[in-house]
Parts: sequence; C-alpha cells; structure tokens
Amino acid sequence: MPEIYTQNISGCMADMIGDDGLTGDALEMARTAAWDVWSAMRADIAEGGFPAVSIAQQSDDLAAVRDAAARLSTHCDTVAVIGVGGSSLGAEALCALGPTPPVDVRFLNNPDPETVARFKASVDFARVGLVMVSKSGGTAETLTLAMTLMPALIDMRGGDAVADYSVVIVEPGDNPIGRLAARWGVPVIEHPVDIGGRYSALTAVGLLPAALAGLDIAAVRAGAVEALETNLAGKSVDDVPAALGAAVSLALLQSQGARMSVLMPYADALAPFARWYRQLWAESVGKNGFGTTPIDALGSVDQHSQLQLYLDGPRDKMFTIVTQQLDGRGDRVSPELATFAGAAYLAGQTTGDLLAAEQEATIESLCAHGRPVRRIEVPRVDEAAIGALMVHFMLETVTAAFMLGIDPFDQPAVDDGKERARQRLAEAAGSAGGVAA
Amino acid sequence: MPEIYTQNISGCMADMIGDDGLTGDALEMARTAAWDVWSAMRADIAEGGFPAVSIAQQSDDLAAVRDAAARLSTHCDTVAVIGVGGSSLGAEALCALGPTPPVDVRFLNNPDPETVARFKASVDFARVGLVMVSKSGGTAETLTLAMTLMPALIDMRGGDAVADYSVVIVEPGDNPIGRLAARWGVPVIEHPVDIGGRYSALTAVGLLPAALAGLDIAAVRAGAVEALETNLAGKSVDDVPAALGAAVSLALLQSQGARMSVLMPYADALAPFARWYRQLWAESVGKNGFGTTPIDALGSVDQHSQLQLYLDGPRDKMFTIVTQQLDGRGDRVSPELATFAGAAYLAGQTTGDLLAAEQEATIESLCAHGRPVRRIEVPRVDEAAIGALMVHFMLETVTAAFMLGIDPFDQPAVDDGKERARQRLAEAAGSAGGVAA
Repeated sequence: MPEIYTQNISGCMADMIGDDGLTGDALEMARTAAWDVWSAMRADIAEGGFPAVSIAQQSDDLAAVRDAAARLSTHCDTVAVIGVGGSSLGAEALCALGPTPPVDVRFLNNPDPETVARFKASVDFARVGLVMVSKSGGTAETLTLAMTLMPALIDMRGGDAVADYSVVIVEPGDNPIGRLAARWGVPVIEHPVDIGGRYSALTAVGLLPAALAGLDIAAVRAGAVEALETNLAGKSVDDVPAALGAAVSLALLQSQGARMSVLMPYADALAPFARWYRQLWAESVGKNGFGTTPIDALGSVDQHSQLQLYLDGPRDKMFTIVTQQLDGRGDRVSPELATFAGAAYLAGQTTGDLLAAEQEATIESLCAHGRPVRRIEVPRVDEAAIGALMVHFMLETVTAAFMLGIDPFDQPAVDDGKERARQRLAEAAGSAGGVAA
Repeated sequence: MPEIYTQNISGCMADMIGDDGLTGDALEMARTAAWDVWSAMRADIAEGGFPAVSIAQQSDDLAAVRDAAARLSTHCDTVAVIGVGGSSLGAEALCALGPTPPVDVRFLNNPDPETVARFKASVDFARVGLVMVSKSGGTAETLTLAMTLMPALIDMRGGDAVADYSVVIVEPGDNPIGRLAARWGVPVIEHPVDIGGRYSALTAVGLLPAALAGLDIAAVRAGAVEALETNLAGKSVDDVPAALGAAVSLALLQSQGARMSVLMPYADALAPFARWYRQLWAESVGKNGFGTTPIDALGSVDQHSQLQLYLDGPRDKMFTIVTQQLDGRGDRVSPELATFAGAAYLAGQTTGDLLAAEQEATIESLCAHGRPVRRIEVPRVDEAAIGALMVHFMLETVTAAFMLGIDPFDQPAVDDGKERARQRLAEAAGSAGGVAA
C-alpha cells in the first residue's frame, strides 16, 4: 500500500537549486530546533494533548454527526452552513471533495446583502436547512445571518419545523447562539472547548457539512490517524514530515528571506484546502511582528497568473507543491485530431497526462530558477488524503510556532477590529433611536 | 451624480498612521516619477495607444458579442468557457456580478480530470455550449479541453450542431484552435492582436461570457470610459488616481519595505475581481527580480483568517480596501430577537449595516496598527463599477511598471515552464509509441 503522503524537500537545498537554497549547515540548526520542539510535544500529542488531531482517533462521536446529517438530508435539498473563519474553511475544504453531493451544501460566511439575496433566490426556501457554527456563540456575522434567516424560515414553516431543519454547533454555556437554539428547540452539537476554530476541521464543525456533501467521514479520520501515526513514529527529524517541514520553512525564512509561503496544489478540489491552510498558518504564526505570509495558489491555473512573478520576481518565497498521481486519468485527445490541429505533442494524451506534466514542469522550473520548492504527494485526492494533509499542516504549524516562541492557539489582534465594528454598530443603534427601540 | 470611484490614500501617510507611513518627502519623489511617466503616456492613451482601455470607447463591436450570446442562449442551458489566465480571469470577474444569469456560465480553466468529470455529470450535455478562448490559439490546456469536449459534443449531436453551440475567440492567422474552428465551422470572434490576455477583460474575451451571464455589457464599458476620462482629465498627479496609486505603491515598497499588496474588497461579487488583479499585477510587474506580490483577500471573510497576520505580523504589506455603500441594505435583525440573544448591538441592524461597520473598522484597525491602507470606494458593486475598477488597475499597473523600467506587457519566464511541460508530453508520446500512432 502506498504511504498516505510523502514529502520531498530536496528542491529547497543548495545542492539542488544553487545559492538560493539551504546549505546543510543552515538546515541543521533548524532541524535541531525542530527536533527539540517535537520531542517535547511528542509524548503529549501521543496522549491526546493536542485534541485537534487526536480527535481523529475517536469514532464514538461520529454517530451523532451522521444522525444529524441524515435528519437534515431527509428534510432539505439545500443546507446553508453559517459560520466564518475556522467555522467554515475546514468544512469548505472537505466539501470540495464531494463529487455528487446528496444535499447542496452552501456556505454563508459573509453578511453581504447581495449574497444573501442571491442565495434566497436560487433555492427552494421551503427545503432549506441551516447549520450554524460559532465556537463562542457570539460571532457577529454568524449571529446576524442566523437572526435573519431563522425567523424567515419560521415565518414560512412554523416554529416547530426549525428544530427539524437546523443544527447549531457551539460551546456549552450561556451565549447568544445557544439562546437562539434553546428558544426554538434547535438540536445542539457541542463544539469541543479545547479545540480552537481554525483547528476544528476534524470535529463535527468540518465533518457534519462533509457528511451532508456525501463524504466518507470515517475515511477522513482514518487518513488523519495514519498521518498522525507516521509523524509520531519518526525516530529522527527526517522521519517526522511535519517537524522537517517546519524546520525547512523557518530556515528558508531566516537564511534566505523567504517571507512568503505559497501552497499550490495541482487539483481543483484542493483549492479550498489551500485557503484553510492560509488561515491556519496566518493566525497561528503571524504575531508579534513574526510570521510568514501564506499564499494560496492553484495548479495549473496560476501558471497562467502567478508563475511569472514566482520565477522571475523577488526571491522572497518558498513553494509547496501538492501533487497527485494523474497519468492516464481523464479524457484522451485523439491522435488524429491533435495532428490535424498542429499540436502533435498532445496526441493520445489525457487531461490527467497534461496536468501531470505541468506539475512536474513547474517543480523543475522553480528549481531551475533557484526558487525553493518542496513537494508533498498524495496518491489521489480523496477523503483519506485530505485528512492526512490537515494533520500534517496542523502539526507543522504548531511546531513552527513553538520554534518561534509564539502561541499557536491565540489571535489577539483580531479582537481590535471586532470591538471597533461593535462600537460602530452600538453607536449607530443609539443615534438611530427608534430603529432599535 | 456620485463619482464613478474615489481613492483615498491618507491611511498610507505618516501623519495618519505614524512611522510606518509615508512622509511627504518620500511620497514626493514617487509622485514626481509617476507624473513623468503619466505625462509621457497620457497623450498616447488619449489617442488610443493603450487599446486595452481605449476599446471601452468603442461600441460598434458589441453587436457581434450580443449576437453570439443570443445564439448560444437559444441553444444552451450551460456554456463552458474554456480558457486559462487572461482568457478566463476577466470573464470570471465580470460574471460574478450576474445575479440571475439566463445561462449557467461555467469556467473550465484547468485540465483537471476530476473537474471535467464533475462538469459533465452536473449538466445536460445535450444543452452545453462552448466558448473557447486563446489569444495565440496554442495554449495546451485550452487545446486539450477543446479537443476532448468538442468531439464528445459532436458524437452526441452531429457535426453541424457544434457550429451553433460554440464560439472561438482567437487571433487571426493559422493556429491550432483556428484550425479546429475551421474544421467544424465554429464561428470565430477575433482576439485583438494588440491586447494581451491579462488586459483583455473589456474585449469580447470578457464581454461575451458577461453577456451570457446577463450583464449589461454597455454599462461595463461606460464605467470604464468614465474612469478613463477621470484619469485623463487630471491636471496633477493628485487628480490622476491611477498615477497616484502607482506612486504610493512604489513609495511604500521603497521606503517601507511593503513588498506585498493586498487587495481586499468588501463584496463577495468582487472576489474574482481580486484574482483578476492578482494576475494583472503579478505578470506585469513581477520580473527581473522586481515587483511586489499581489494578494487577494475578501472582507469580511478574511478578518477571520488573515487579519491577525495583517495587523500583528511583519510590516511588509500595503492594503487596498475596496468599499461600497452598504448601510440599510439587506435583511434586518429584529430588535426583540437581538435583545433576547444578548446581542443588543445588533438590534435593528441589517446585514449591510454590519458589513459597512466592518469595512470601516478594518480600515481604522489597520491605521491604528500602523499598516498602510488606501481606500477605493464605489457607490455600488455593479457593471459600471467593475468597468471603472478594471481601467483604474490597468492604468495603475502600467504606470508602476514603467516607473520601474519594466515592460508591463510581456511574461518571459512562464515560457520556460510551458516548454518543459511540452517536452515531457512529447517524450511520453514518443516512448508510448503506439498511443500516438
């Protein structure tokens, strides 16, 4: 059986790409630091001390998720997932893998009036269900969408129906979303208290939407467990892909000024995964003036958009290309037609052959231009693969943050913006007088 | 009547945001350089020397676009636009504004076998039309998708039907896509020879998909013309928003190390526009080791993903927030419900009120953290606004490139990757022997 995923960092090294790569010495310091951090965390992780990943080893909580999905699927053609940031991005990443979803899962992650209007106009509102997700239960965007859409559904179908058509995922305790759930008898699935939003993809937050979209959620967890075990089993930093990845990232930042980290999967279905990673890395590592900026890209699309800059612009990035086995997959170009068109090199090739050639060509081209590139390969983009990738990047992110002396689990700066928005609204409500009366 | 768009750079200045902003002196040098470049280009642009923008002043070419759209709309429920990079991103940006499209316009911009399979499974293939776009006529991804999908359509409906169901947009002359069009009698709209792919949004490349999606394409052009005239009318750099924007960008790069440029509209419908900008800027300015890295973001979504990094990470970015007038738009939260939930600050507020408060709060928060931010405001995100924004950013990009001594119209480095992919395929075809025979 092939490994669940593999990592190859040779394209980050000076002996492969020249002076812009890492020397053995430059990497060695970071390897040592990464191993120290990993060694200190390892036993704790193995004993469940990082619940965001060790929850993958559970299975007794999946029945509740499947039951909720089955109930919603019975009553709904469309389910809107109302949540922002970590309450949405992991679920979006997973749902992108559902080829023929039994339920149309939509994400309402922005209080944009135009988006809400289009959503309502594009669905049979009498067959819409809601999954409302907020860890704290007080997220302004989620609350506003919930407090406008739930009453609209109740107006149409009566108060009792909302209980059948909705689910709330929230921490235990008294909070606004919890109160709304209690008011209308909406079933609640508990958001684990010890798992932060951006680390919640393997909980019900990710898995309930995934189940609605038709994914095999046990396979997601199984892939996650396999990646976790691979990392935990490593006897040196070279055998712990997450720790080695963290070491390479920080060594490239420190010795080569690679202050941006581009994640570029060669699979449309992983485009939302790259945006999930973007939040994970940015909020976990970007603080106190530290951090690198994550950038999501997509192969082969961004060869025609960003590759010029990547190859020939400033030398300030590292690249992670996520590849899959594509040869022979997809529709085949007729040799006669390709020859007629004057594109003989495409004769007999499939779409997958082309995409496979492009992912190899991009890696080669980055190396030839002295741009550090690592490759992460999965056999095929499926449930197990995305579970594994999520665990890899959660472990890598936490390792990198601790190497920098940064707390990977807080996000102190965003509260400033939230408070400013809240004040503006409170002042507007006050000055408007009658509106809020 | 309000202006078509306004730009406010005060949040980039030291007297507003402190030491991380520009001093008057630092901006003055860039202003002078921008004015020199602009003055040299201005007369030429006014006389049609920058056809990507001056094409907006034409209207005689719109009838052919409308005719093609009408023909496809009659025969098709779904139209797949096959094109990559500049042959896709402008059209995607425009189509995002179509709220209730008469035809379901899809973009096939990647030879991903899984995507193609899902596309076929999700449509009535007998009612699918194709718009195939490649300036050179030789783009490998476009060719491969065209050479697999066109034969499939012909198998189903017979050879004559393709002429009714398809359009090709390509430069004149002998090239692979042109040969395929000739073979099956597919109508061709000429891609202007003097407009590069990433500058083609205001040509048929952008406007045919837009017309299919139900947009008022004359209004797109009218907004573009208004923005062009605004810029051409300026008597000093302060009255030429595109030149001033270029000056601020480069001054922030040079004096403050702002090597990333984040474009963050507060409108879901502008998310694809930000990706269009990302190509425009990256391919035009990112060469010879120069350039800044464009990053697309989305308000309010990325407040819950990237804002922590933006406020508290390294000081290496400038921000452009695109705002619109949102107050009072959208569904309103019942005061009674908000009070019951314990979120009185949302009482009587609409979704638009919340989004409006958030866009202001983000700008304030960036300023308070000393992060340079400019604001570009449109009255409302509509056809005229996006036409205007496209002209603004095309003019700004070209001005910035010339200030750096860079040719904004080539992309020399991407050919390396293309050649490598082509060689791999040719070798594979050779070694496979019989496959291509």
